[in-house]
Amino acid sequence: MRYTKEVEKWGTFEFSVDGKTAGNPFTDYNITARFESESEKKTVAGFYDGNGVYKVRFMPSFAESYRFTVKGSFSDDTYTGEFTAIQPSADNHGPVRVHNKFHFEYSDGTVYYPVGTTCYVWELQSDELIAETLHTLKNSPFNKIRFCVFPKSYCYNTREPRSYPYEGTPVDGSLVNEDNIWGFGPDSEGNDWDFARFNPEHFQHIERCITELQKLNIEADIILFHPYDRWGFSAMTAEQNELYLRYTAARFSAFRNVWWSFANEYDYVKSKTTADWERFGEIIVECDPYNHLRSIHNGAVFYDHTRPWITHCSVQSSPEGTADWRRTYGKPVVIDEMAYEGNHTNVWGNISPQEMTRRFWAALCRGGYGAHGETYVNENIWWSHGGKLFGESPERIAFMKRILEEAPSGGLKPKAMEWDDVCVVPEVDEIAEKTGYHLFYYGISRPAFRHYHIDDENVYSAEIIDTWNMTVEKVGEFKGRFKVNLPLKEYLAVRITKVIK
Amino acid sequence: MRYTKEVEKWGTFEFSVDGKTAGNPFTDYNITARFESESEKKTVAGFYDGNGVYKVRFMPSFAESYRFTVKGSFSDDTYTGEFTAIQPSADNHGPVRVHNKFHFEYSDGTVYYPVGTTCYVWELQSDELIAETLHTLKNSPFNKIRFCVFPKSYCYNTREPRSYPYEGTPVDGSLVNEDNIWGFGPDSEGNDWDFARFNPEHFQHIERCITELQKLNIEADIILFHPYDRWGFSAMTAEQNELYLRYTAARFSAFRNVWWSFANEYDYVKSKTTADWERFGEIIVECDPYNHLRSIHNGAVFYDHTRPWITHCSVQSSPEGTADWRRTYGKPVVIDEMAYEGNHTNVWGNISPQEMTRRFWAALCRGGYGAHGETYVNENIWWSHGGKLFGESPERIAFMKRILEEAPSGGLKPKAMEWDDVCVVPEVDEIAEKTGYHLFYYGISRPAFRHYHIDDENVYSAEIIDTWNMTVEKVGEFKGRFKVNLPLKEYLAVRITKVIK
Repeated sequence: MRYTKEVEKWGTFEFSVDGKTAGNPFTDYNITARFESESEKKTVAGFYDGNGVYKVRFMPSFAESYRFTVKGSFSDDTYTGEFTAIQPSADNHGPVRVHNKFHFEYSDGTVYYPVGTTCYVWELQSDELIAETLHTLKNSPFNKIRFCVFPKSYCYNTREPRSYPYEGTPVDGSLVNEDNIWGFGPDSEGNDWDFARFNPEHFQHIERCITELQKLNIEADIILFHPYDRWGFSAMTAEQNELYLRYTAARFSAFRNVWWSFANEYDYVKSKTTADWERFGEIIVECDPYNHLRSIHNGAVFYDHTRPWITHCSVQSSPEGTADWRRTYGKPVVIDEMAYEGNHTNVWGNISPQEMTRRFWAALCRGGYGAHGETYVNENIWWSHGGKLFGESPERIAFMKRILEEAPSGGLKPKAMEWDDVCVVPEVDEIAEKTGYHLFYYGISRPAFRHYHIDDENVYSAEIIDTWNMTVEKVGEFKGRFKVNLPLKEYLAVRITKVIK
Repeated sequence: MRYTKEVEKWGTFEFSVDGKTAGNPFTDYNITARFESESEKKTVAGFYDGNGVYKVRFMPSFAESYRFTVKGSFSDDTYTGEFTAIQPSADNHGPVRVHNKFHFEYSDGTVYYPVGTTCYVWELQSDELIAETLHTLKNSPFNKIRFCVFPKSYCYNTREPRSYPYEGTPVDGSLVNEDNIWGFGPDSEGNDWDFARFNPEHFQHIERCITELQKLNIEADIILFHPYDRWGFSAMTAEQNELYLRYTAARFSAFRNVWWSFANEYDYVKSKTTADWERFGEIIVECDPYNHLRSIHNGAVFYDHTRPWITHCSVQSSPEGTADWRRTYGKPVVIDEMAYEGNHTNVWGNISPQEMTRRFWAALCRGGYGAHGETYVNENIWWSHGGKLFGESPERIAFMKRILEEAPSGGLKPKAMEWDDVCVVPEVDEIAEKTGYHLFYYGISRPAFRHYHIDDENVYSAEIIDTWNMTVEKVGEFKGRFKVNLPLKEYLAVRITKVIK
């Protein structure tokens, strides 16, 4: 047996042992472990990692000494040992949790405002392209990325992935072209997979990518199922799906930056019913001992985000409904898909950088969080392959993130205003009261002026934020009802804060 | 008695006679007339025009000789006479009617595509300002204008009208200011009106304005009721409303360019119920012998436009629902309010010229008709007072009108396409088939290219229309499935037409 002797709190402990290889080690045997420290006791499932090696992973939630006992059905032996979980390093804040009902924070209480992007299969590209994507991410405002375990077959996504999740052989991908890609479904003839035998290298590689993201403080929002498929991975049996989920959870759960996105466009996965998705939720809740964030992203029809296994709304839509979705679902609203900046031939992938930026602010100023994607048609397209970013919105999204980080902590909630105003104030009433913080957003509206009236007692500072040109201009300090003249421009915000003398 | 001896077909014949002035001539007496020609027989009601004069008007629908018999309850006399309706002059095409279910044409079969604007009380301003408005309209693309019979009290609309519709005295308007305007309602104390005695000069003046519009070939879409009121005109009794409608119909119906807009924002007129609006419809149907177009414009909630007295949908909304509204109501869709270009402080009045132009195209390319308004905050604001236009959209609207006029006649209907395409083809299937005309619109989308495939037999010409920069660029001629590369710009349309060899 081999195992980690020292690991950070919220780091990944790993235990390995050699076992039997006869039969199908993925299904014929199991391995489980019991971890105990002063404050924590957990039993977790392990997995077969190929080449006769069985593994168990564990993420300690306390900086304490841990004892473990491992038992595998492939042997009569019982393995025991100890390791130490030390204090986390500076950038390790633990897993992200829901905070203040509609927001997030890291487990150590550090603020986390999701600013996501999507690169569906960036991790299944070449080493060079993966390195380029990580380099781009490092210099970007993004702190969450959505991507798939299964490869993707779709327009501009005809190339083969670097590996497959199962043993077997794929359909001939050279038959896919621009003309038939839309009809190339999961039932394509020519696939020959053993859905009971995983390809450990596929998962090992994804784990390396999760770890690289972790080093950049980026959350890995892992898409478990999606409909863009020519290999049959979206149309497996209930039993095969369960095996896949248990295997994936056993492998990925001990990485602190993992989130579970049960689907991209769940309602376009024609082979699955609500009962299936509910069952998948049950399995992940059972198999992920750390309770990572869980969501399910829609195509045309929202899932019922009130379901208890769902931690936050992962929405595809323009963000105008954000305040309504908060009320309806009572959970954080992350609009993971608001269309993409680019010139893709389809309407969901060709909005301007101005419109992408507008949607971020429109989400923020209704109490939610937007997300980015880019679809300029090049050899590689960020939205699927990663690589370089060509757009003009990321810089503005970084500016918005700065404005958000300057806001009182704890998140922002929509304030009930006259019908045509969009405004957020701090989520926590005491913070709202103390700071007097108001962030108004005008989008495509270009009012010549606006009147504001927070109260009659205090002095308020007013600033005009040009969200596109990334400027903040202080207008002055005011008491009572006051007027702010605005330039004839779209995309303005006004920030009002109480002047504490 | 005095009367017109010769009038154009669809012109306004007028008969006048002196009668009693004792009591209340508006309610104590009536005057009716019977008109007969070879093809037409109609009985119409007249009205009291002040100074002891009673009048009857009539719009002949045939170029024939007419005999008339007039009877007034103020006298035992019966007045008879004859006049000739001659062929209409070149610009007189008669009243506009619904055509091809979703479109319009003049009574003589000439194409009429509504391109409307709104100036709520332009006609109640000074002579100088009215002259300026007419001059602006003459040089504009607009062929319909919406305006109110009653004056308007609202933000930026505090000045007194040039006249009132009733005898009496108004509330002191100097009490109105920016701060209380929103709460200044129809129950304001200080008004003293006799709702049984009209002010004929108010109506005579409006008739002169209708006539001036007629000379410019502009339809007068007359708003009968609206909620922006400090004088009580929006909260009269059912009896008073009926008197008003009968009087207005008797006066205005014989002008060929009159349309009846029963309300602006009917649902914001708190004193009226659906039963009231239905009754108003009944009265106008009864009292307008020429069956002018009738509509009722919404605030937040659409009226049931399937009601038989409504000839077309007059909508307030962004135009994305146009195709749905066509299906739901089975009538022409005119989006009379799509927000206004300007910098008004409210969200409905401060969109950019790009967005105003976009909404026109978005309406057109879904089978409906947009309408314009402008709200740049100046001494006069077009939307209410008329005067000058400052915006950049009218020029683009004129360009759109040109493109529409170049389309095969009979109107355009939405074509069922892939989910993300917006496209119209000729309403009449035989014309669609013969011309192969397709007009695609991409709005804020910026696709790098699009594929088109009308059929495999014919040759099609494709043109890229830049709706903002007002250019038309021919791409080429194609057969079968073909690709058009598009520049990285918003607001593009693509026009495809069959090449007839």
